[in-house]
Amino acid sequence: MAVGLTPPRNLLPVSGVRLAVAEGGVRYAGRRDLTLVELAEGTQVAGVFTRNRFSAAPVTVARRHLASGSAIRALIINTGNANAGTGVAGLKAAEDSCAAVAREGGWTPEAVLPFSTGVIGEPVDLATKIAAALPHLRSQLATDQWEGAATAIMTTDTIPKACSRQVEVDGVKITITGMAKGSGMIRPDMATMLAYIATDAPLAGSTLQRCLQEAMEQSFNRITVDGDTSTNDACILIATGQALITAISTCDDPRYAVLRDAVVEVAQWLAQAIVRDGEGASKFIPIHVVGGRNSEECLQVAYRMAHSPLIKTAFFASDPNWGRLLAAIGSAGIDDLDVNTVQVWLGETRIVRDGARDSDYTEAAGQLVMAQEEIPVRVGLGRGSASETIWTCDLSYDYVRINADYRS
Amino acid sequence: MAVGLTPPRNLLPVSGVRLAVAEGGVRYAGRRDLTLVELAEGTQVAGVFTRNRFSAAPVTVARRHLASGSAIRALIINTGNANAGTGVAGLKAAEDSCAAVAREGGWTPEAVLPFSTGVIGEPVDLATKIAAALPHLRSQLATDQWEGAATAIMTTDTIPKACSRQVEVDGVKITITGMAKGSGMIRPDMATMLAYIATDAPLAGSTLQRCLQEAMEQSFNRITVDGDTSTNDACILIATGQALITAISTCDDPRYAVLRDAVVEVAQWLAQAIVRDGEGASKFIPIHVVGGRNSEECLQVAYRMAHSPLIKTAFFASDPNWGRLLAAIGSAGIDDLDVNTVQVWLGETRIVRDGARDSDYTEAAGQLVMAQEEIPVRVGLGRGSASETIWTCDLSYDYVRINADYRS
Repeated sequence: MAVGLTPPRNLLPVSGVRLAVAEGGVRYAGRRDLTLVELAEGTQVAGVFTRNRFSAAPVTVARRHLASGSAIRALIINTGNANAGTGVAGLKAAEDSCAAVAREGGWTPEAVLPFSTGVIGEPVDLATKIAAALPHLRSQLATDQWEGAATAIMTTDTIPKACSRQVEVDGVKITITGMAKGSGMIRPDMATMLAYIATDAPLAGSTLQRCLQEAMEQSFNRITVDGDTSTNDACILIATGQALITAISTCDDPRYAVLRDAVVEVAQWLAQAIVRDGEGASKFIPIHVVGGRNSEECLQVAYRMAHSPLIKTAFFASDPNWGRLLAAIGSAGIDDLDVNTVQVWLGETRIVRDGARDSDYTEAAGQLVMAQEEIPVRVGLGRGSASETIWTCDLSYDYVRINADYRS
Repeated sequence: MAVGLTPPRNLLPVSGVRLAVAEGGVRYAGRRDLTLVELAEGTQVAGVFTRNRFSAAPVTVARRHLASGSAIRALIINTGNANAGTGVAGLKAAEDSCAAVAREGGWTPEAVLPFSTGVIGEPVDLATKIAAALPHLRSQLATDQWEGAATAIMTTDTIPKACSRQVEVDGVKITITGMAKGSGMIRPDMATMLAYIATDAPLAGSTLQRCLQEAMEQSFNRITVDGDTSTNDACILIATGQALITAISTCDDPRYAVLRDAVVEVAQWLAQAIVRDGEGASKFIPIHVVGGRNSEECLQVAYRMAHSPLIKTAFFASDPNWGRLLAAIGSAGIDDLDVNTVQVWLGETRIVRDGARDSDYTEAAGQLVMAQEEIPVRVGLGRGSASETIWTCDLSYDYVRINADYRS
């Protein structure tokens, strides 16, 4: 069902990053549910995580290990169990998982970051399963395993999500490759489900963190499938520094912007891929709100529309039921909104002019846009110069089926 | 599909209120889509309306007529067209409708309140259709037509919603009868879709308004079906004063509380009926949040759960997927929430104790509650003494079907 999305092709290895996958039997036998990512010495890692107060045990442990200042040498990712809502036992499982990976690699436990995704609230003996799979995982480590890893981290995803970009800096080709998973419980708040982006560029600590934050704000923090913020969101930016250019240690370095733009491009592609593969999605809907007094009110209007089940089902039905758009705009919380300055377009077709139906609008014209797989919505608030764009999808029978069936 | 709801029985007339319905051909021929309510001289009327900035033309006109201080003598209600997003032409249609009704009754146009519900954004020649139906409507006016009127105001509702209560004041039986419609686009903000409650008690102006406000806060402002706030929400409280007791002109009058409690009871019954008949609803879910620092944070948590498509689909599937409840509680916007003090019950079954799965909880026990048609959810936040209750329903295939089909 993924909208305008094909399996990844031509993924480029990132020097210093090796990956491997294995069948760990976390929830089901015979499913590749474990991914190990090994990072070369000298690699810098930045992370952002969910703001959900019920953040999962691996999120707590990953935050702690990153904050410890320890050099990060490995990521261990499992599907099948989110290790969230699991209390003290869950924290121990996450810590023990790191310790098991660290032991094999000859590192301290703080050198390992754990990630989990799957059912919330089920106890699981993760560390034992990971320890059992480690010999196989380590023997399979290779730089060309991005596609296998992108597949192994999937849950209700229907297609692996990964892409690569290259930019030239100081005459050297720099590579950026990223992968992400996520399809439901998608309304990231400072991060997304699970996303990993790696580059061989030498980006130092605070510059790396800034680059990640800037990329997030234009990608994962601008998507929504169902408005539900996960307990396990995490996004990691890895810089191995193996490209032969001198270190980029400040954001004023002109090379920083070149690299950041390429990272934004990868992050946006991955974030949009999550929406295109949103649970049950049959339409991909960019919502562009312009003319706001500030970004915040543009986002309020955009998310109000993106979270309206009435609007989402109308998109599913390809029905230009634009009254539902007006109802959402009018209840988005802008108390002093003058509706007479509001314009609404579907694609290039203006539906609403100055707060009421455009006299040139015809149902047939609206229908033409709604029949597309990609339906751009643009709202003009006519009260300022701020603008924002977010991406969402429709609400279909399949969304209900997937989520009514998920645990069975 | 309405959950635990049967057609109204034993509706009691309210002296001074006469009703009639007619086929006006507003959108479809052969459908009873017009309702006229005539109020006896001396009747007091209070109203609350949607806060949606795109409020419908009839909402604007009804507000204006109420504010004019004119004695209200009639309500004219149509389905089939919401007369919202219709600009200046829509305002004229609403004004002209009032004028047509007023002409027949020998009143000023300000004595009439207009109400519309149906599709948003379609132009319609309402006044002409209403004028044509008026002779028939006036000839049919009778005090025992509440059930017919409750049926004629339905749109996607599957069952008419109306009820009566009586209380004794000063040895006199006071009657309160109410009707409401609404099934989708239900997340009232200061009012609901369309609700009309009438009593023969002599409640004077400000006392009547206060009574309406107090009733709203415990009923229509505590329900949600889909989180979408309508452009046409309106709730009207009518006091004909025909009961033979002396006027109740202050809220300190001990009789006020007796009457108000009876009005609250009617309003709550109607509000819950809207949720029980929510679009596609197969489950009725009271959400009770206790132990908050204030009402606001209790409501934040309650609505976050009630609007989560993941939780709503789990209820539809009778799946005690309580991890989704935790994810919603954790992302409800209480930044300093200590998850270790959170408790969650399904019915009488405790699922979450101190932030993690209760060790006594079994899936079978959760399944038993989830199999019920009514599933009470209780959340203890453990940080204060405030509490709130709201009512919602599940999200089913039928919800998608109804809203993907609504205009066709």
